[in-house]
Amino acid sequence: MSRIDGRKNDELRPVKFTRNYTKHAQGSVLVEMGETKVICTAMIEDKVPPFLKNTGKGWITAEYSMLPSSTQTRKIRESSRGKIDGRTQEIQRLIGRALRSVVDLNAIGERTIWVDCDVIQADGGTRTASITGAFVALVDAANILLENGSLKRMPLKNFVSAISIGIVEGKYLLDLCYEEDSKAKVDMNIVMTDKEEFIEVQGTGEEAPFSKSDLMELLTLAEKGNAALIEMQKEVLGELASKVLGPTEETTEGNNEK
Amino acid sequence: MSRIDGRKNDELRPVKFTRNYTKHAQGSVLVEMGETKVICTAMIEDKVPPFLKNTGKGWITAEYSMLPSSTQTRKIRESSRGKIDGRTQEIQRLIGRALRSVVDLNAIGERTIWVDCDVIQADGGTRTASITGAFVALVDAANILLENGSLKRMPLKNFVSAISIGIVEGKYLLDLCYEEDSKAKVDMNIVMTDKEEFIEVQGTGEEAPFSKSDLMELLTLAEKGNAALIEMQKEVLGELASKVLGPTEETTEGNNEK
Amino acid sequence: MSRIDGRKNDELRPVKFTRNYTKHAQGSVLVEMGETKVICTAMIEDKVPPFLKNTGKGWITAEYSMLPSSTQTRKIRESSRGKIDGRTQEIQRLIGRALRSVVDLNAIGERTIWVDCDVIQADGGTRTASITGAFVALVDAANILLENGSLKRMPLKNFVSAISIGIVEGKYLLDLCYEEDSKAKVDMNIVMTDKEEFIEVQGTGEEAPFSKSDLMELLTLAEKGNAALIEMQKEVLGELASKVLGPTEETTEGNNEK
Amino acid sequence: MSRIDGRKNDELRPVKFTRNYTKHAQGSVLVEMGETKVICTAMIEDKVPPFLKNTGKGWITAEYSMLPSSTQTRKIRESSRGKIDGRTQEIQRLIGRALRSVVDLNAIGERTIWVDCDVIQADGGTRTASITGAFVALVDAANILLENGSLKRMPLKNFVSAISIGIVEGKYLLDLCYEEDSKAKVDMNIVMTDKEEFIEVQGTGEEAPFSKSDLMELLTLAEKGNAALIEMQKEVLGELASKVLGPTEETTEGNNEK
Amino acid sequence: MSRIDGRKNDELRPVKFTRNYTKHAQGSVLVEMGETKVICTAMIEDKVPPFLKNTGKGWITAEYSMLPSSTQTRKIRESSRGKIDGRTQEIQRLIGRALRSVVDLNAIGERTIWVDCDVIQADGGTRTASITGAFVALVDAANILLENGSLKRMPLKNFVSAISIGIVEGKYLLDLCYEEDSKAKVDMNIVMTDKEEFIEVQGTGEEAPFSKSDLMELLTLAEKGNAALIEMQKEVLGELASKVLGPTEETTEGNNEK
Amino acid sequence: MSRIDGRKNDELRPVKFTRNYTKHAQGSVLVEMGETKVICTAMIEDKVPPFLKNTGKGWITAEYSMLPSSTQTRKIRESSRGKIDGRTQEIQRLIGRALRSVVDLNAIGERTIWVDCDVIQADGGTRTASITGAFVALVDAANILLENGSLKRMPLKNFVSAISIGIVEGKYLLDLCYEEDSKAKVDMNIVMTDKEEFIEVQGTGEEAPFSKSDLMELLTLAEKGNAALIEMQKEVLGELASKVLGPTEETTEGNNEK
Repeated sequence: MSRIDGRKNDELRPVKFTRNYTKHAQGSVLVEMGETKVICTAMIEDKVPPFLKNTGKGWITAEYSMLPSSTQTRKIRESSRGKIDGRTQEIQRLIGRALRSVVDLNAIGERTIWVDCDVIQADGGTRTASITGAFVALVDAANILLENGSLKRMPLKNFVSAISIGIVEGKYLLDLCYEEDSKAKVDMNIVMTDKEEFIEVQGTGEEAPFSKSDLMELLTLAEKGNAALIEMQKEVLGELASKVLGPTEETTEGNNEK
Repeated sequence: MSRIDGRKNDELRPVKFTRNYTKHAQGSVLVEMGETKVICTAMIEDKVPPFLKNTGKGWITAEYSMLPSSTQTRKIRESSRGKIDGRTQEIQRLIGRALRSVVDLNAIGERTIWVDCDVIQADGGTRTASITGAFVALVDAANILLENGSLKRMPLKNFVSAISIGIVEGKYLLDLCYEEDSKAKVDMNIVMTDKEEFIEVQGTGEEAPFSKSDLMELLTLAEKGNAALIEMQKEVLGELASKVLGPTEETTEGNNEK
Repeated sequence: MSRIDGRKNDELRPVKFTRNYTKHAQGSVLVEMGETKVICTAMIEDKVPPFLKNTGKGWITAEYSMLPSSTQTRKIRESSRGKIDGRTQEIQRLIGRALRSVVDLNAIGERTIWVDCDVIQADGGTRTASITGAFVALVDAANILLENGSLKRMPLKNFVSAISIGIVEGKYLLDLCYEEDSKAKVDMNIVMTDKEEFIEVQGTGEEAPFSKSDLMELLTLAEKGNAALIEMQKEVLGELASKVLGPTEETTEGNNEK
Repeated sequence: MSRIDGRKNDELRPVKFTRNYTKHAQGSVLVEMGETKVICTAMIEDKVPPFLKNTGKGWITAEYSMLPSSTQTRKIRESSRGKIDGRTQEIQRLIGRALRSVVDLNAIGERTIWVDCDVIQADGGTRTASITGAFVALVDAANILLENGSLKRMPLKNFVSAISIGIVEGKYLLDLCYEEDSKAKVDMNIVMTDKEEFIEVQGTGEEAPFSKSDLMELLTLAEKGNAALIEMQKEVLGELASKVLGPTEETTEGNNEK
Repeated sequence: MSRIDGRKNDELRPVKFTRNYTKHAQGSVLVEMGETKVICTAMIEDKVPPFLKNTGKGWITAEYSMLPSSTQTRKIRESSRGKIDGRTQEIQRLIGRALRSVVDLNAIGERTIWVDCDVIQADGGTRTASITGAFVALVDAANILLENGSLKRMPLKNFVSAISIGIVEGKYLLDLCYEEDSKAKVDMNIVMTDKEEFIEVQGTGEEAPFSKSDLMELLTLAEKGNAALIEMQKEVLGELASKVLGPTEETTEGNNEK
Repeated sequence: MSRIDGRKNDELRPVKFTRNYTKHAQGSVLVEMGETKVICTAMIEDKVPPFLKNTGKGWITAEYSMLPSSTQTRKIRESSRGKIDGRTQEIQRLIGRALRSVVDLNAIGERTIWVDCDVIQADGGTRTASITGAFVALVDAANILLENGSLKRMPLKNFVSAISIGIVEGKYLLDLCYEEDSKAKVDMNIVMTDKEEFIEVQGTGEEAPFSKSDLMELLTLAEKGNAALIEMQKEVLGELASKVLGPTEETTEGNNEK
């Protein structure tokens, strides 16, 4: 009746964020969602891609990779194969869009923040865990720029998190583990902000088409899951959380004063 | 008040399918949606990828490309750059999933159907036009296998079409042209069957998050657009259309007789 | 007695030029020679390759490609293989040389004209059709520069066209279709100007060596074919044709006046 | 007078092995030497490279990589650059040779053991830490084959570890951290067995040549360091350590009995 | 009045063949034409490309490369650039065609003869020197197969050589050195047999178109040059030369006897 | 009792240097050690890699390659495979480090000296022969800069040579030929200066570990071999040899005078 791992259909796996996981990146977070473990880091570089030169605007680039040993059967390194496969490209484009959507790129100046999501153990939901964890690393990195005076205000406008949902054996499930994911007829990934708004809605029913009411049920689960994840992000960020939440008003005030 | 090209918000651009556009492919369709023009072909190969060998099952692989001259400023060839970019990979994976979702892969036997979508002129919506046009080419190719006795029944289970929708300057628009697309805050692509079910829902609000009610409005437009496109597919396919619609029941009967 | 398609040995296939075939390129021509169909476009870019920087001189670069569906059995995309094969490289180098030979590169200033020849249906003679069609696209593109005042005079010095010839079953044939080409013992491609001069002479007798008198017979056929093609180019270009033919004298006069 | 981090010249950094670090690999060890942290895994595949097919012999292949965030300034991914750089190739060849030297490749049968060393934090000595840690992962993986009856005896003949040594500001130092390494005039990496024999001796004096007596001093340090590392490997392996040490005699006995 | 190096217009540079130049290849010739020096080798492999499997037919593949130090300014290695440029591809395709045209591919059985032409010093005419030298290496390699009984008869049907010709400052010149070549308005390469027949005729007038009478003059020079080169090939091959010349008749006799 | 080719265990193969082997490179040497033959060239380029721009310092880059025909069975070109293999990378990094260690990079100014080592015949010891021969080419190239006034003093601080040693069938052997090398249990390459100091010590006992006393025996052989090689370098360089030996003192004097 219950799920493989005993969870309820609308229950997240245990979530854990370990900040400052490694020492060189400005932001470095190990995010764990059940058995899925991803190192998410944010590193600041004082230059931007060519299309942003002399615009005063910054950029956020995301890269995603899985260690060969992160999967049940060893995954061949993309460096050995000499190219990045389509799935990886799709995922890193998704992570980049999700994070840029909550960042005021004008506020970070002509800097690139490189976000790296390296999966060290995979058990489903690695792309959504990457977004959720990378956001925390991004806050840490942005805070360093704020603290050392490089930035005047926090460039983050909203919290962002992501979760997977799906239809497995006729049931609507939140946060699929690998075994559930491989049996899902419909599989969705939803990226949301703390305002309960959507950044990305991606659903595919390759195995079986789905109806609008299926979609509604799944979105409701996703809203619940993302709200819970954002609460956990706030908790682990502690004081820093308020720096993210506050900026919009402050910025407005700041603009008025000028 | 009206759109750039005078259309109403919920109006498709003029759609045109030219079947048998070139002579070597088993299915070959030029699909035009306004100024967007894509050559969609389906070619049959009597072998399958390694993971399907000796399974009796077939496969559908899709490739997508834009001619260098299809865009306003010349697009560098991916063959010259030596690799396929992330956007192209995403699109060809999408087209492949969409078409496979309406094909009974067991029914085509150990064959690969190669679907090629080559954009000769781009004005927004090339990926959705590719899906809509490729479906028609696929029916033509499958029919050749049926006619020459290679297949016993039509392997297509449903019609499939796709359309883009978006929020531009606060308005919900159907079938965005390039100029609209480049101003859209929210941008979606919806793939649907003739049963009004969803195969893919992809929406992104990188520029601005969107609410659930925005999503509902957009899905309603997409349902309308896809229904109209499927009507046009049926019309252009003429008699062949009924071969797509009928198979499920026939198959069942066939099973009873055995 | 007559050829596969009923032509005489010295007869061209039906030739058709469709100008303004697509809308983004400055010059865009669909050229058809029998069943061979090639989209030839010319796009202008306001910069030159490094070796021409600050020389005041322009450049013409040609790229050639075949759609996967253009051939009888599907041709694997060069972008998928990650590299451009030797035949393609040879052809695009040939097209580039042929076009540059009739252009006054000083007269186009520091611009690159990108010529793209994309074969949408192949039935022999794609490289020669590419040259013949690309010349028309080039005139259209150059004329836009002339009309908008970017250029003072037409940079085209001559007409240029190309045709294939060969020895098939002991007969000297003009304009080989694919089936003839695959049986040819000797295979040549000849690029010529409207002055009946040669730009390129390429002949290969891998299957069987050929004598000087064979060569003479073949060149005579090529002269005939190219003369006819240039007549057709003039016809389709209408008024523009005289702008190509005139420049040499005009230029001289112009120089005298200064 | 003492070193950057207060160590004595012949003192190792704190060493820590965490076995079973991730769950999918048969052997998985996080090795830490001071601030250098490497995930070393061993995964078994039931096939061998072509040159070993039908020889009854197995193989060990090693791959090494650094996470982009493992270094002070972000390291570009080799998958993004499309090729593996010379340093990486050198290191993975070294790790492979070192491990193969202590394995009885006949004893593992036609299997490949894939060893992956992924640096998550770098502070000097990543290649030597990789060898030392990978050996422990290899024992764990081999033991699984032994326990499930796939192997009759432990295929490991010796312990193997590696350490760096160098001449920095005239002093002979053991186990250089990054800051020391970047100032070293002479830099060596020494791979040894528990029999105090050498597997690899690699020393380079690009900055300054070194004498034979320098070499002797450095080798003495390396012997000391490797002996200590092997003691730690034994300790962390516990009971399994004796399975490595014993096999040679057992094998001999076994041979006598047959 | 005379040429840069004092030659007459129809005079070859000094030609020298050194057979058995290196020891591993079955045929190995250093060919020198003036300052142009190319190592031409022929190596036999007992398998054929996939398209020839089980046909009883063999193949000849040619590769061409220039040492970085062979040119006035260092030429970047193609292995460093990661791809083979268009010029190289054109040349190796030319060499392959030229050699295959004089070989009875049925007579060599299912073998590939790899011909490598490595330019160690370039001074114009490297592709033609490669063909001329490679032929000699090919005879030596084929003779080994003949001598050890692998072949019943010499598989070479004709001699083949190649030479460059061109129009420089209005003069028709044979065998252009680099300085002449870089000033040539018209540049041709002609491959011929000992029967004074043509295998390849390649001429380009990128700088200036040329007339039919120019072409005739140049062909006459080429005939003269190739005839002289073939005489030299015969001389250096000594006794082996007659084995090349004889086979056609012998074969016929052989056939009669059966 | 004696070796395959009749040498004593501590005897070098016949060594021969041919200076000015080709004409375009500033230094060009054919080095032969027995049957191993390598063309070593040094070419000067008036720019440096990005990391040295505006430092006043120069650089030396080495590339190494084997002709396909240099080995017993044909070696596939790295340009055809599209990448440089690990062994090649290791060797070219080694050659580069060895040469840079004896060059005063400040003294050559912002120039790159490209050293190319192309093996035309391989019989063991190609990497060590490359270093030994490249040094002579480097002296010739540096001398040209000195002679034409580009440099004030010889930038070479020491002689450098390299030799292989190994343990074969229990015997310590100097300068292994290919057949010996393929049977060696321990294989070392030692790079040394004329001061009897070490630049590189690389030894590997993949087949069998070795003891410190083995190492001592091998180093003694290497010292003997390198001393002999440096004598031969001096001899072939004649007068130029003293320019290498002298500079250190001269430089010091020069500095005093300023």
